[in-house]
Amino acid sequence: MAFRPATVEDLPAIVALLADDPLGAPREANLDPLPKAYHDAFARMQQQPGNDLIVAVDQDSVIQGCLQLTITAGLARQGLIRATIEGVRIAKAHRGTGLGTRLFEHAIGLAKAAGCGMIQLTTDSQRTEAHGFYTRLGFTPSHVGMKLTLSPHDAPEQTRIRHG
Amino acid sequence: MAFRPATVEDLPAIVALLADDPLGAPREANLDPLPKAYHDAFARMQQQPGNDLIVAVDQDSVIQGCLQLTITAGLARQGLIRATIEGVRIAKAHRGTGLGTRLFEHAIGLAKAAGCGMIQLTTDSQRTEAHGFYTRLGFTPSHVGMKLTLSPHDAPEQTRIRHG
Repeated sequence: MAFRPATVEDLPAIVALLADDPLGAPREANLDPLPKAYHDAFARMQQQPGNDLIVAVDQDSVIQGCLQLTITAGLARQGLIRATIEGVRIAKAHRGTGLGTRLFEHAIGLAKAAGCGMIQLTTDSQRTEAHGFYTRLGFTPSHVGMKLTLSPHDAPEQTRIRHG
Repeated sequence: MAFRPATVEDLPAIVALLADDPLGAPREANLDPLPKAYHDAFARMQQQPGNDLIVAVDQDSVIQGCLQLTITAGLARQGLIRATIEGVRIAKAHRGTGLGTRLFEHAIGLAKAAGCGMIQLTTDSQRTEAHGFYTRLGFTPSHVGMKLTLSPHDAPEQTRIRHG
């Protein structure tokens, strides 16, 4: 298994993984051809240094896992750089094989190389199995993760995420 | 009260706010002159489009509140753009006056203008008063916020947060 940043060719496989999940399924649109919204989103990510999709690829070049790793500068904690992990998925056939642990170890290594002093993530309160997985990796459930949905979410232009 | 992005001249006042907090005090180095780590961190933030410190400034140009607002592109949820809020502080004299609500309303407006479909934050489980504040703003405590401290945290170069 190899770990590398995703390319645009990987998008259908990644969206398939995102959708192959009880919580993710109703939120995604895993169609062929892939909806433009995903390509637009990937283009926006490419514009943001330190915002990467990391994939786990098997010996047949099939994507078996993914996560999003974002490196964020900040003033708090004497200028601590944070890594944030989102959208973690492991293909069903590989769950419980240690692939998730190896994907996380790879991401932790990338975060350290980027100078991060902390990795953070939020996990849905319903994902009780995931909580055990993260705790075994050394994560502490010290915080409450709060979300506010904004609506309507109309397709934004790439330029909107820039300053000003 | 006015709300605007922070400038380098605002850093001492922002660090003073970050340190004027029971959890924040032992984590910051609120010294005069301000340690270089904060200036380096602000320079790194300036390199990241969509990563801003927002300050609330009174009629005498004194900073009375701050938060960090980060806009992050992502593939999940059909390419949802997320806003993340960190490091929220309101000066003691202004707590309970509604300033925090107004600062958040400003940040929510910026997130909407950036095309965000969600705002998320994590709040320390010890901050029970903050949980009520966020819930009243419409946030749902649907997630567990998990943190992994990485060490040693040596001062990184600006370039490390770039791709590759």
